[in-house]
Amino acid sequence: MLEADMKSGIKNIVILGAGNVGTHLAWAFRDADFNIAQIVGRSEAVVAALATDVGADHTSSFSEVKKGHDLYITALPDHAMEEVLPKLGLADELLVHTSGSMPLEILKPYSENIGVFYPLQTFSRKRKINFKEVPLLLEANRMDNEDRLLEAGKSISGNVRVVDSAQRQAIHIAAVFASNFSNHMYEIARQILDVHKMDFDLLIPLIKETASKAAVLGPGNSQTGPASREDMETIAKHLQALGENPGARELYKRITQNIIDQSGQSDDKL
Amino acid sequence: MLEADMKSGIKNIVILGAGNVGTHLAWAFRDADFNIAQIVGRSEAVVAALATDVGADHTSSFSEVKKGHDLYITALPDHAMEEVLPKLGLADELLVHTSGSMPLEILKPYSENIGVFYPLQTFSRKRKINFKEVPLLLEANRMDNEDRLLEAGKSISGNVRVVDSAQRQAIHIAAVFASNFSNHMYEIARQILDVHKMDFDLLIPLIKETASKAAVLGPGNSQTGPASREDMETIAKHLQALGENPGARELYKRITQNIIDQSGQSDDKL
Repeated sequence: MLEADMKSGIKNIVILGAGNVGTHLAWAFRDADFNIAQIVGRSEAVVAALATDVGADHTSSFSEVKKGHDLYITALPDHAMEEVLPKLGLADELLVHTSGSMPLEILKPYSENIGVFYPLQTFSRKRKINFKEVPLLLEANRMDNEDRLLEAGKSISGNVRVVDSAQRQAIHIAAVFASNFSNHMYEIARQILDVHKMDFDLLIPLIKETASKAAVLGPGNSQTGPASREDMETIAKHLQALGENPGARELYKRITQNIIDQSGQSDDKL
Repeated sequence: MLEADMKSGIKNIVILGAGNVGTHLAWAFRDADFNIAQIVGRSEAVVAALATDVGADHTSSFSEVKKGHDLYITALPDHAMEEVLPKLGLADELLVHTSGSMPLEILKPYSENIGVFYPLQTFSRKRKINFKEVPLLLEANRMDNEDRLLEAGKSISGNVRVVDSAQRQAIHIAAVFASNFSNHMYEIARQILDVHKMDFDLLIPLIKETASKAAVLGPGNSQTGPASREDMETIAKHLQALGENPGARELYKRITQNIIDQSGQSDDKL
C-alpha cells in the first residue's frame, strides 16, 4: 500500500528558483491544479511574490525546504545546483533539474530518485505563454520515475518526450542557434534601423514569415538573400555600408560565408 | 486632358522577371484587379506559366516588350538590369525596380519616370503569403510618380511608405540579418538535431515564440540563453560538443562574443 502510494501521481510540488523557468513552471502546474507546496530561492522578495501568485509557502533558506513532497524541481542556474542541493537533505524524494546542458547524473548525490524536466522554450517573466505547446523533454533514472514525470508532464504540456542527456545537450545547442542567435540577428537589425531613425516594427512581417516559412518548408528550402544566390556585388555593398559597425560587419561576413559554403546557387531573392 | 490621363491611376502593368518577387507581385496585382499586360523573362517555360496564371501575354525577348503601358516593374536580379533594360526602348513610361540595394538612379538612362517598389518580405514561389501585410517601400524621381506608385502600392498592401535609397539599403541589410541570417541559424539547428536523429519540428514552438516575443518586447529585452547570462561553463561545453562541426563552432563563438560584448548580465534562461 505504501509502495502503491509512492508510485501514484504527483500532487505536491516544491520549486527551487523563481527565475524565468521556475516562474513559468509554477504557473503551468498551478493552472493544471497541482499544489505548489513551496517556492524556494535566494531573493526573498522575488520568491514571496511568486509564492503569493501560486498559493504556495516560501523560504529563502535552502535548509528550510520541506521534506516528503512528491516532486522537487530545481530551476536554479546550473552553477548554483552544486552549492544549494546538498542543503536540502532529501532522501528519496523525486528530484529533477530543468537544465538543457547538465546530465542527469549530477543529481545522484542528492536523492535516489532523480530526473530531468527540460522545457524547450525561451521564457521571460514579462510574457505569458501557452505551456501546452512547450515541448517537455524528460529523463529519469528509473522506469517508475519516468512514468511519474511523464504523467505530470502530460498534464501541463501536449508535447512530452523522453530524451537522454546526450540528445538533450544537442537540443540545447540547437535551441541556442534557433532562438538566442536568431534573436541576436533581430537585435543587430534593430540597431541598423535605429541608426537610420527607422523602427524595428518594419521588420516584424518579415521576421514572422521567415519563422513560419522555415516551419513549413524547412529552413534549407527557405533560404533567400544575397548569400544564398552568391550575389557578391550586393554582399560587397553591404559590407562597405557596415563599415562603422565592426561587430555586425564581422558576423555578416562569417554567416554569409557559411551560407555560401553550405548551399548551391539559388534564384531566390529577398 | 492628355496630362490628366497620364497622371491618373495605374491599370496596365508589365512585369519583367518571373522569379520569386516577380511572381508574388504579379499575383498581388492580379488579385487587386489590375491588368497584367505582359510577363517578360529569360525562361520561356517559367514566363509562360506565370503569364497563364495571371492572364497576361508573355515573351522571353526583352526587345519585344510592349510599349505604352502604365507601369513597368523589373524584378530581375540586380546584375541583369544593366544588360536587359536598354533593350526595352522605353521613353517616358513609369519604370520601377524592386531591389533593396540598388539606388533609384540606376534607372535614369532608361526612362524619364522612374521609381522603386521594394516589397520587404522573403518570397518563395512555393509559398503563398498575405501581400496586404508586406511593407512596400517606395521611391520616385518626381512627386507625381510618387503619387502614382503610392496609389498602386496601397491597393495591394496595407503598409506602404516612402523611403530614400540610403534608408532602403539600411533596411535591406537589416532584413538580411533578421531573415536570411536567422533562417541560417534555424538551418544549423536543424543539422545539429539531424546528427542526433531528431526532427526539426521539435524547435518550431521555440522559433515561433522567439519571433513573437521580439515583436512584442523588442529583441533587446528578449535575449535569453548562455551568452546573455555569460554562462561560460555552458558555452565551453557547447563549443566542445560542436568540435566536429567547425563552421557552426566558429559562428557559435563569434555570435556569443557579440552578445556578451553588447549586453549586461541577465538572469534570463533559455
